[in-house]
Amino acid sequence: MSFNTFGKLFRFTTWGESHGPAIGCIVDGCPPGIYLSEKEIQVDLDRRKPGKSKFTSQRKEADKVEILSGVFHGKTTGTPISMIIYNKDAKSRDYETIKNKFRPGHADYTYFLKYGIRDYRGGGRQSARETASRVAAGAIAKTVLKKLIGKKFKVIGGVIQLGLLGCNKNNWNDKEIQKNPFFCPDKKAIKLWEKYLLAVRKAGSSCGAVIELRASGIPAGLGSPIYSKLDSDLAGALMSINAVKGVNIGAGMNAAFLGGEENSDEIRNVKGKTKFKSNNAGGILGGISSGQQIVASFAVKPTSSILNMRETINKKGKNTKISVRGRHDPCVGIRAVPIGEAMMSCVLLDHYLLNRGQCG
Amino acid sequence: MSFNTFGKLFRFTTWGESHGPAIGCIVDGCPPGIYLSEKEIQVDLDRRKPGKSKFTSQRKEADKVEILSGVFHGKTTGTPISMIIYNKDAKSRDYETIKNKFRPGHADYTYFLKYGIRDYRGGGRQSARETASRVAAGAIAKTVLKKLIGKKFKVIGGVIQLGLLGCNKNNWNDKEIQKNPFFCPDKKAIKLWEKYLLAVRKAGSSCGAVIELRASGIPAGLGSPIYSKLDSDLAGALMSINAVKGVNIGAGMNAAFLGGEENSDEIRNVKGKTKFKSNNAGGILGGISSGQQIVASFAVKPTSSILNMRETINKKGKNTKISVRGRHDPCVGIRAVPIGEAMMSCVLLDHYLLNRGQCG
Amino acid sequence: MSFNTFGKLFRFTTWGESHGPAIGCIVDGCPPGIYLSEKEIQVDLDRRKPGKSKFTSQRKEADKVEILSGVFHGKTTGTPISMIIYNKDAKSRDYETIKNKFRPGHADYTYFLKYGIRDYRGGGRQSARETASRVAAGAIAKTVLKKLIGKKFKVIGGVIQLGLLGCNKNNWNDKEIQKNPFFCPDKKAIKLWEKYLLAVRKAGSSCGAVIELRASGIPAGLGSPIYSKLDSDLAGALMSINAVKGVNIGAGMNAAFLGGEENSDEIRNVKGKTKFKSNNAGGILGGISSGQQIVASFAVKPTSSILNMRETINKKGKNTKISVRGRHDPCVGIRAVPIGEAMMSCVLLDHYLLNRGQCG
Amino acid sequence: MSFNTFGKLFRFTTWGESHGPAIGCIVDGCPPGIYLSEKEIQVDLDRRKPGKSKFTSQRKEADKVEILSGVFHGKTTGTPISMIIYNKDAKSRDYETIKNKFRPGHADYTYFLKYGIRDYRGGGRQSARETASRVAAGAIAKTVLKKLIGKKFKVIGGVIQLGLLGCNKNNWNDKEIQKNPFFCPDKKAIKLWEKYLLAVRKAGSSCGAVIELRASGIPAGLGSPIYSKLDSDLAGALMSINAVKGVNIGAGMNAAFLGGEENSDEIRNVKGKTKFKSNNAGGILGGISSGQQIVASFAVKPTSSILNMRETINKKGKNTKISVRGRHDPCVGIRAVPIGEAMMSCVLLDHYLLNRGQCG
Repeated sequence: MSFNTFGKLFRFTTWGESHGPAIGCIVDGCPPGIYLSEKEIQVDLDRRKPGKSKFTSQRKEADKVEILSGVFHGKTTGTPISMIIYNKDAKSRDYETIKNKFRPGHADYTYFLKYGIRDYRGGGRQSARETASRVAAGAIAKTVLKKLIGKKFKVIGGVIQLGLLGCNKNNWNDKEIQKNPFFCPDKKAIKLWEKYLLAVRKAGSSCGAVIELRASGIPAGLGSPIYSKLDSDLAGALMSINAVKGVNIGAGMNAAFLGGEENSDEIRNVKGKTKFKSNNAGGILGGISSGQQIVASFAVKPTSSILNMRETINKKGKNTKISVRGRHDPCVGIRAVPIGEAMMSCVLLDHYLLNRGQCG
Repeated sequence: MSFNTFGKLFRFTTWGESHGPAIGCIVDGCPPGIYLSEKEIQVDLDRRKPGKSKFTSQRKEADKVEILSGVFHGKTTGTPISMIIYNKDAKSRDYETIKNKFRPGHADYTYFLKYGIRDYRGGGRQSARETASRVAAGAIAKTVLKKLIGKKFKVIGGVIQLGLLGCNKNNWNDKEIQKNPFFCPDKKAIKLWEKYLLAVRKAGSSCGAVIELRASGIPAGLGSPIYSKLDSDLAGALMSINAVKGVNIGAGMNAAFLGGEENSDEIRNVKGKTKFKSNNAGGILGGISSGQQIVASFAVKPTSSILNMRETINKKGKNTKISVRGRHDPCVGIRAVPIGEAMMSCVLLDHYLLNRGQCG
Repeated sequence: MSFNTFGKLFRFTTWGESHGPAIGCIVDGCPPGIYLSEKEIQVDLDRRKPGKSKFTSQRKEADKVEILSGVFHGKTTGTPISMIIYNKDAKSRDYETIKNKFRPGHADYTYFLKYGIRDYRGGGRQSARETASRVAAGAIAKTVLKKLIGKKFKVIGGVIQLGLLGCNKNNWNDKEIQKNPFFCPDKKAIKLWEKYLLAVRKAGSSCGAVIELRASGIPAGLGSPIYSKLDSDLAGALMSINAVKGVNIGAGMNAAFLGGEENSDEIRNVKGKTKFKSNNAGGILGGISSGQQIVASFAVKPTSSILNMRETINKKGKNTKISVRGRHDPCVGIRAVPIGEAMMSCVLLDHYLLNRGQCG
Repeated sequence: MSFNTFGKLFRFTTWGESHGPAIGCIVDGCPPGIYLSEKEIQVDLDRRKPGKSKFTSQRKEADKVEILSGVFHGKTTGTPISMIIYNKDAKSRDYETIKNKFRPGHADYTYFLKYGIRDYRGGGRQSARETASRVAAGAIAKTVLKKLIGKKFKVIGGVIQLGLLGCNKNNWNDKEIQKNPFFCPDKKAIKLWEKYLLAVRKAGSSCGAVIELRASGIPAGLGSPIYSKLDSDLAGALMSINAVKGVNIGAGMNAAFLGGEENSDEIRNVKGKTKFKSNNAGGILGGISSGQQIVASFAVKPTSSILNMRETINKKGKNTKISVRGRHDPCVGIRAVPIGEAMMSCVLLDHYLLNRGQCG
């Protein structure tokens, strides 16, 4: 059973609402004896946090994480790691005027039907603020994988499509991703993207994005057929991120357009090592990692909180209109990059541990 | 934990290899007191089985299902329903010549690395033959949902893209889907598709497909945030089907290209009933069903078993070539339609039961 | 998968070490719309907390619980309820002298072998301090069950055996349990128990206990054969409590001594209601509740931390001796009463929700 | 979620009714590359099967097991192992006269309340016939553990109490257990037990039993605190066996009577090896194996199907009487020995794999 818990052997459970006193995360199943401090976790939280550029929400949250358990003398103990992040800049007042209306594209309506409750304060539990907890868990997963696999291990994500604008994936540069406010891997795309996104925001609108994730150094053999396939678990994990509507592994939806010869990746022995001539499979065959780079991508829908007036109903079922003011990302897809990396890292570590357990 | 078990409250476990004596499925968590016989299950199995047209594999399998437990006096008892399907037309001989080679695009290589075993007989457990068990479980899920929800409940899938050829979704006709060998909902597309697929096969190649699934009559409130969201579980379920590489919910990957106003579905009260003006969300908001039609689609890669010669390695790691003869579907995506319906039905029933348990 | 999470639909996850900054608990799967505040939870925490009488540990912990999420406007929202309890009176210094020795009867040795770590500070994660989190979760379970079942619902436990001294179960009085420091249901036993336990402590020793739990108002039909039987889940839950070595349902171990006629409870229709003539089954038949009172008991071993000198080894494997000073309960079984009630309540609620989900 | 599935990494799912066409079991999570045939499984099934002596039911079942999947070229493949056992000697006619009555002590009444169904044919799913599937799964677990741990691994159980008669545990002899019809480890007790059980049966009655299980060669470190403790999982597993009402680990319920010095097992370094001076813990401390012998015991209630007339009600709620004829064990506890061994073996293997996965 999952609900607010993710994972099988490496599991995390998140809690907290957008405007509650705090949010947090328990990581369970972390191997013992691994050096861990708030510092490594903070690096990824800082990448996700709002207010860093004019292209993200202006809510000011330091997102400072505190570890409350599971670490002794600087090392993990194998017991649950509890982390807490206090909410500092919640402005529930901003939401007072729309507290009885359902924002289109948000989960206000469905939460109200399911639970009979409308926690209007920044969306309550449905808020993407919950993803800070995921990033914290993912940072631990990365730390563990680095220890278990070594230096060759790396998970990195980049925005490859910003609304209507793509970029040239041939220019993919890991370092570039850390330099621009879009997590875009193609330096040449930045200028145009800046102008475009400012225009979108100025128009009171928003846009979507596509993020690509790449994991290197992943050993072959991870993934458990038939219903815990690596790609199946990745798809579920990425689709669980707020606003995600589509997930691809390798060639993804485009695989439908390929012929059998183009699609299946030929295999070669090159100087004693197995090499594939292409990677349409995204590094996964039959749900099991092949030793190639793991490649997945996902689409994030445009931010639903926009200034432009929209039609909706209120809690009493009456027709009304809504314009959502406050502090919102014009493209929530951007900050989805570290979240995607976190989810992929957690899935990979989970399957690493599973594989070690069963077929070591 | 899943592996060979799928689901939370409504669970099925499958077993069996392509060329073993039989395959089968245990359905656990089926509510008691529901009329069930082999007949309803056979209907869906017949839709999936091979050898029905020149566009699918010529392996002749009656796929006759037998219920061994869980039904008494024609009704489910609430105890596990065990179903068995004997393999009748396995020709392992066809695979003798390639028994030491890894077929590109298949899981031969990854299974060998993970398990140290090469069950060459039709792919063993990795074979899509396993999906007959899913269809059997899905038929039970459909039967239960029909009982619980009533006549308005319906799950139906159709092929909307065959390789390079699309169809016109405005012509979608549920009845048409049952009439043509492609499960295509658009009558006007059939002729061209026939010619195209014959040409693909004649060329010794294969092609991919996109399948769309639509579920009607689904009540609002199904789906459990944050890590058992309805869309997340659907994505995981569909990605677990053999050869699937991409999954969309509603607008899916295309959501990235929409603006905030286009994407979020406006809500109206029409004569006392909640209506949405569009369905880009695919009937799911924040992971919870909204009462709209649930819409998902997925891409199936082209069949990897093709006549055209390809490069690969053998079990000893030596470079070699391979041409896969035998009986194969030129487009495995076609028979994925009843499988997709089955997986969607199982996910929906699972969340129906979960919802009843928690928030009834 | 469980580990630090307990339950299926109603789940709680605990974290924290005896001498860390805090301990806590996330309750997931709590139905929405139920009135809940720290007050109801504190009542049970106060019953478990140390330092209340001369018969328990003198560690002074207020065990004040704070709710950090999941409650809005005084009611549960259906989202995770995070609770935190700060550790105030940890004296790790007390443990300095034995930090390299393994205390016999404790888990020092096995934790060290499993995790490679010796968190000597009050036992770290293995400390019974963790059970405060269970009691907090159990208090929520009780609150929910009271709402769902009504006033007839009640779970209560009492100590029926204190070391070598029993009590007369015919004198069982629920109210008496709340009045004496032993949670003993038999007023007549108290005086002797007091003398006995003071003598045990004075002798630098400790003693065990047997606790009996009774749940009334539980509807028939709870429990899921074959591997989620109500008694099986209760046994696992109670055995997971620190220092528990034996669990009985109904007649328990004594059932072995009964003949078939004595043991099986005859059934009667009395004025239209089903009545059993006895309750050797403890209210559970075939793993399913029968509508009778649910009765379980469990044995707690004597406190392993005693003054009397004992033989052991240290971290280097050298032979040595140990006398455990500090603040310890002469009988840990006493404070196990509210813990047992908590675990039973959680199991009952879990099965209540499961039953509602599956068989309406 | 469990229900009809048991285990975490090593899992089995059972199906089938006492008088259905067959019963069976799927074992999932079995490591690959292990020699396995029906032969090893049959050995344990033969130990459990009825009709072997005058002290068990006279139902004649060969209990011949067939493996349908998961084994290729004599070795496990890592895919699900499906096993089937056909029912040959079901006599549903014997149950016709009591088909509308609820047998006291059986689950007839609770199944009827829960599922609305009375599968009177030998008890349907609630029958202990289901335990044949457990024994089959346990035989696989033993085979795997023997391969992973080596020759020093052994799990053996014996009846140490038959109704009112105990035996001398100082005379425990593993070989003796295989020689007498009671699985009694003490040769000297047999004669008296024979007379006693014949007298019990002649009186139209039945008796209970206590079984002790011992596992040797188990490495330290198995078991996952806090909610997957080895003892907690063992208790749940043993309590799930039909008719079991009490479970002890090590000293068990008797631990309540011991003082702190008597109970906690002192530790010594003897020639470089850790030795405990006693084993009241039953080889488990803090839920983790210590390297000592794992010792558990459980009580089985007397057979509820007896000739002696008893009071009960029928399906309409009317008072009536019942005498259960047919073929029944005078003491179902005897055949519980191989079942207990099976459950213990499955729990141990499960934790062995878990431990390998997490902390290898």
